[in-house]
Amino acid sequence: MWEREPKETEILMRLLASLFCATAVFAGAAQADALRDTAKEYFAPLPSTIPALKDNRVTPEKIALGKALFFDPRISASGVFSCYSCHNLTTGGDDNMETSVGHGWQKGPRNSPTVLNAVLNEAQFWDGRAEDLKAQAKGPVQAGVEMANTPETVEATLRSMPAYQEWFKAAFPESDAPVNFDNMAMAIEAFEATLITPAPFDAWLNGDDEALTAEQKAGLQLFIDKGCSSCHSGVNVGGHGYYPFGLIEKPGAEILPPDDKGRFAVTETVDDEYVFRASPLRNIALTAPYFHSGKVWDLKVAVQIMAESQLGEALSDQEADQMVAFLDSLTGTLPDVVLPILPAETATTPRPTSEVR
Amino acid sequence: MWEREPKETEILMRLLASLFCATAVFAGAAQADALRDTAKEYFAPLPSTIPALKDNRVTPEKIALGKALFFDPRISASGVFSCYSCHNLTTGGDDNMETSVGHGWQKGPRNSPTVLNAVLNEAQFWDGRAEDLKAQAKGPVQAGVEMANTPETVEATLRSMPAYQEWFKAAFPESDAPVNFDNMAMAIEAFEATLITPAPFDAWLNGDDEALTAEQKAGLQLFIDKGCSSCHSGVNVGGHGYYPFGLIEKPGAEILPPDDKGRFAVTETVDDEYVFRASPLRNIALTAPYFHSGKVWDLKVAVQIMAESQLGEALSDQEADQMVAFLDSLTGTLPDVVLPILPAETATTPRPTSEVR
Repeated sequence: MWEREPKETEILMRLLASLFCATAVFAGAAQADALRDTAKEYFAPLPSTIPALKDNRVTPEKIALGKALFFDPRISASGVFSCYSCHNLTTGGDDNMETSVGHGWQKGPRNSPTVLNAVLNEAQFWDGRAEDLKAQAKGPVQAGVEMANTPETVEATLRSMPAYQEWFKAAFPESDAPVNFDNMAMAIEAFEATLITPAPFDAWLNGDDEALTAEQKAGLQLFIDKGCSSCHSGVNVGGHGYYPFGLIEKPGAEILPPDDKGRFAVTETVDDEYVFRASPLRNIALTAPYFHSGKVWDLKVAVQIMAESQLGEALSDQEADQMVAFLDSLTGTLPDVVLPILPAETATTPRPTSEVR
Repeated sequence: MWEREPKETEILMRLLASLFCATAVFAGAAQADALRDTAKEYFAPLPSTIPALKDNRVTPEKIALGKALFFDPRISASGVFSCYSCHNLTTGGDDNMETSVGHGWQKGPRNSPTVLNAVLNEAQFWDGRAEDLKAQAKGPVQAGVEMANTPETVEATLRSMPAYQEWFKAAFPESDAPVNFDNMAMAIEAFEATLITPAPFDAWLNGDDEALTAEQKAGLQLFIDKGCSSCHSGVNVGGHGYYPFGLIEKPGAEILPPDDKGRFAVTETVDDEYVFRASPLRNIALTAPYFHSGKVWDLKVAVQIMAESQLGEALSDQEADQMVAFLDSLTGTLPDVVLPILPAETATTPRPTSEVR
């Protein structure tokens, strides 16, 4: 009898339980939707196609040429450095050091930003001094502490190899003299536009509830509630606005070296002193060390510094962990990159020089 | 009538012509076969499968790990250099400079040899001081002018990243502590064993008469007749024996710097003064500049210097061109190399240092 007695109670319990579950699921879905709705006000998923470029139509020929150029160390005076050296596609599109080492073992002034998804930033460099990647691409090639080359020598190098002549012609059929520095930069921009890395966060924004863990969702909620998303927003979760580093509280000189005044050097406006671009945060878990100075290696510490200096908020340990969990969901998948095969030098190719002038 | 008269003559002429053609084709085939038979006494085509390695069973897991290591700049003290830096797979497996630039912008003493097909060399380095690629791989990592790292720091670096822990375990399932310097070298050797580049010369050796042009065949004939193939033979057309540079006539100090005594440094035998490995000649057209000193950029000039210094032969301009045409037939096709995606550093990863100690 005892075995039968609880039957009704049991059924009732089961009903209650399933009712509770249904409510929970419903509430969960509603919460997830609410969070997604809010998130969509700040962020956008990556596009499924190669982004269109201003004044630079992307074609397969241009991408192929740009890939060759991106990997070609003969673009640098020494023959040591290619775009790939500081924007290493095996390690998150950057170079894993405080500031890059360049020509003559000189150190660059700022941390190398990732090239991944960089096409979707509104401007390039930490101070936004290049309006797009084709403008950006010309900088490091000529910088004395990076590739230390000149447009004339780069053009002579590329013109000296028949394969490059053909590839430039195919990529720029409308050009009379296609092998030139401007076209080099356009082709590199076209290749870089393919370096898009869809991440779990995109899957979640696109409707896959399971793509983020509960901790990541909590982190996202915090990221919005605390105000991080005021600056780090848009498709790249940053990468479009300029803000003073130390809006509420200036970090120490180790992290914010006093001699680098950021965007001030571009605009010469006092308001732009120590103003930098809000970092795009996609793949941030792969691109330590952090900040323009590259002085912080731990993402959790970087998050805490940001919360204090920009928002005047001291995050609890758990909050910082949740925030980092959310940032992990921005780590994406790079399309397969097959190494290009580059042409050999010829008799007229300028020879590499490691001299520091 | 005149129109008809020549008919018989015409037919006769045609017969004669076709007979002549047949004879020519037959003679051509016979000549090609004779040349191929002779060639096969000196050379061998590349294998169609990954070569077996001594004491190092090649598995897909080991290849995948080795590829990651080959591309990982965190193997170097500075984080600037990976194996790929001086053995660039986009440019023939070398670095296109006289001697490599390494840690602290120091220059190495000798020209970087190609990694392509290097697994088939009988010994490694210009002086043959490493018996195979797993021994070779440990050298540059520790050399002060190259990667300037220590086995301990390399192991600490690799152990700090959970993905590497897994990959080493999968590649060396029998090891108790798989993440170690020796296993690193074994994995790199396994990846490098995949870098085999079949060339037109292989197709010809394998029976495709059309794979070489007439000029290339003439060059091959010369290469054998003049005696080049006495030293440059085997599957890599070199890469197995040691010979004095300047056997008949010493080249100038610019090309053979007096302070680099070659294999003498390994054996400390007077007979080994200025003795170097006969270069493997596969992909030689891609790997200028030439010789251990890297002082000669033009392949034709390099061929002429070799003929004079090693054989006492002054080649005619045409002969040198034919020889270069033959060497061009050794330029092969690398299998597609998809860039690996490497794990991010962790809190315990040793930080890069550009300091020169």
